Amino acid sequence: MRVSVVGVGLIGGSIALAARQRVDAIVTGYDSSELALQRALERGALDRTEHDLAAAVDGAEAVFVATPVGSLPAAVGAVLEETGPHCVVSDVGSTKRGIVGSVDDPRFVGGHPLAGAESSGVEHARPDLFDGAAWYLTPLATTSGILYERLYRLLRGIGARPVAVDAQWHDDALATVSHLPHVLANTLVGRACAALSEESSVPAESRPLPATGPSFRDATRVAGAPSTIWTDIYLSNADALVSQIEDTVKSLEEVSDALRRRDANWITRWNDSAASGRARLIESQLGPGPLLELRASVPNRPGVVAQLALELGRVGVNIADLALHPAPDMTEGVIALWVSGHEAAQQAQEVVQGLGYPVVIR
Amino acid sequence: MRVSVVGVGLIGGSIALAARQRVDAIVTGYDSSELALQRALERGALDRTEHDLAAAVDGAEAVFVATPVGSLPAAVGAVLEETGPHCVVSDVGSTKRGIVGSVDDPRFVGGHPLAGAESSGVEHARPDLFDGAAWYLTPLATTSGILYERLYRLLRGIGARPVAVDAQWHDDALATVSHLPHVLANTLVGRACAALSEESSVPAESRPLPATGPSFRDATRVAGAPSTIWTDIYLSNADALVSQIEDTVKSLEEVSDALRRRDANWITRWNDSAASGRARLIESQLGPGPLLELRASVPNRPGVVAQLALELGRVGVNIADLALHPAPDMTEGVIALWVSGHEAAQQAQEVVQGLGYPVVIR
Repeated sequence: MRVSVVGVGLIGGSIALAARQRVDAIVTGYDSSELALQRALERGALDRTEHDLAAAVDGAEAVFVATPVGSLPAAVGAVLEETGPHCVVSDVGSTKRGIVGSVDDPRFVGGHPLAGAESSGVEHARPDLFDGAAWYLTPLATTSGILYERLYRLLRGIGARPVAVDAQWHDDALATVSHLPHVLANTLVGRACAALSEESSVPAESRPLPATGPSFRDATRVAGAPSTIWTDIYLSNADALVSQIEDTVKSLEEVSDALRRRDANWITRWNDSAASGRARLIESQLGPGPLLELRASVPNRPGVVAQLALELGRVGVNIADLALHPAPDMTEGVIALWVSGHEAAQQAQEVVQGLGYPVVIR
Repeated sequence: MRVSVVGVGLIGGSIALAARQRVDAIVTGYDSSELALQRALERGALDRTEHDLAAAVDGAEAVFVATPVGSLPAAVGAVLEETGPHCVVSDVGSTKRGIVGSVDDPRFVGGHPLAGAESSGVEHARPDLFDGAAWYLTPLATTSGILYERLYRLLRGIGARPVAVDAQWHDDALATVSHLPHVLANTLVGRACAALSEESSVPAESRPLPATGPSFRDATRVAGAPSTIWTDIYLSNADALVSQIEDTVKSLEEVSDALRRRDANWITRWNDSAASGRARLIESQLGPGPLLELRASVPNRPGVVAQLALELGRVGVNIADLALHPAPDMTEGVIALWVSGHEAAQQAQEVVQGLGYPVVIR
């Protein structure tokens, strides 16, 4: 099978590697960056590079356009121009309505693999990046069944789980679980910067604020994700995101109202439902067993995380999530661990206790 | 010195342990829970327990009231009734205006140690819990200088850094950097639960949502903190928190407006300033060297975190913060590490690369 990849960054490069190694594809790469093409060649991701788009997609049976979201309509349009009637064309953008709305061609299927957003560049590309990962596909009403099936089989071949979804639904869902968290993290940083720079009668020296307490660090970890990628994502999903922000404002106003009338019952119900809601949302992703949290108090010195994780690894307990909460001066801390299922939690508790650290399952 | 502790949980128990071990205090404990008192005795935190408040504080030179925020006014009032003119009385509540406003006594100084909020119960108490931690003090205008100095020296003696601040400023600051993050985390969970349960034309099977992608997990980690503690905190700081929520709503509406007019420049500026703002806020807490983030791509199997952390520990690199981003099926992942200073980051990068994992400093 002949595959072309337009844009050989992390995602494009990983598609190329996987296609070569797993389905014996012959892969041609195109990128506006000569350096990226050279690196992709060196990593063995490509059989051939081309500096001309027409040449790069000539004879391809499948083309993946893996460029930033804002450039997708133009890039996908150009590829469709240069390819024949029997070539399936897809993209890998994080939002889907924009591109799906701009293309009317039976050869096109929108796509979005849920993998690898945490690093970028072909140097991080890996053939197993998509193993078991959901890969959303948003076919058009007119998409060719034969071409859709070819894309589907190719994605299965490189390890992904293709799932067809409605483009609108995709963007609404991502607005909720990805784009809105980024907006709130940015907003929180803005509030903290504003509040801490306000005039105060208290001398600056008396204000070593807990600005980076664990709750603040966790809540703002995704703040300021690279604008080169995220400005496009925000704008391409502006409608869905605006609607999420409006609903968020309504929710916040309900909290304000409850606080104003000092409604302890409402606050407790709201807080409890957040606890159970989060557990439910996360459990649904983890397979069997509820997600359980362990908290261990430990001295904060090099090697402690290692010791814990190593011992847990030895008994086969996998850590689903982990957070450190160092004290302001870094001398002591709490390690929060999440594991899936009561048995694993019990095992983890015994291991941690055996190391002499107090630990509770929450 | 004779010290009494009213409420022997994590904080009260740690004060007791530290006072006994570090300043040779004789410590008497009082708690409504007999079990808590027994555990505190077993842990060596107390010289003596009493079931009567008057007996517990009789002869004390300093009393710490370490009960939930909502019960503080009554508990502090009762202690002031039972103690003589030469005993300093303080509390450890997370909000300060309420208690400071309810007491008019030269023997009282409000207090709030920034330590240990991550676990609870005397079984987690440690004599070094406050080492180097800021301990906010909110003296009244009428607080006795002699008694304030005694409290200050005692806190220094158990390892803390006492810092006098205005109660209003304290609560405003905490509203921004602690209580608001909790509200936003709860709200985000509510939004996700609502969105995911909405009617959709897409079959349930086609919706394995990335609800627990890394951004969602990080942003909601503090959601649903125990209501037994947090309902009191929210309500006791309701005014400051309402004001923070109102400012947050304004900020969110600015984002909405920019999205509606598709203002890429505004979005980019806003996003960039979140990135620099967060770095500045966190750096200010970490001492020398900017906070740098490393991202390594790793297979997600037991032992990988251990291996990384162990090797970093061996070369003396301390991890300031750490987050795992497993893929949905948990087979692969990205480890994000934060270290302080370029030298440590470089060292960490070499170690991780030496283990064969791709890594970038961001």
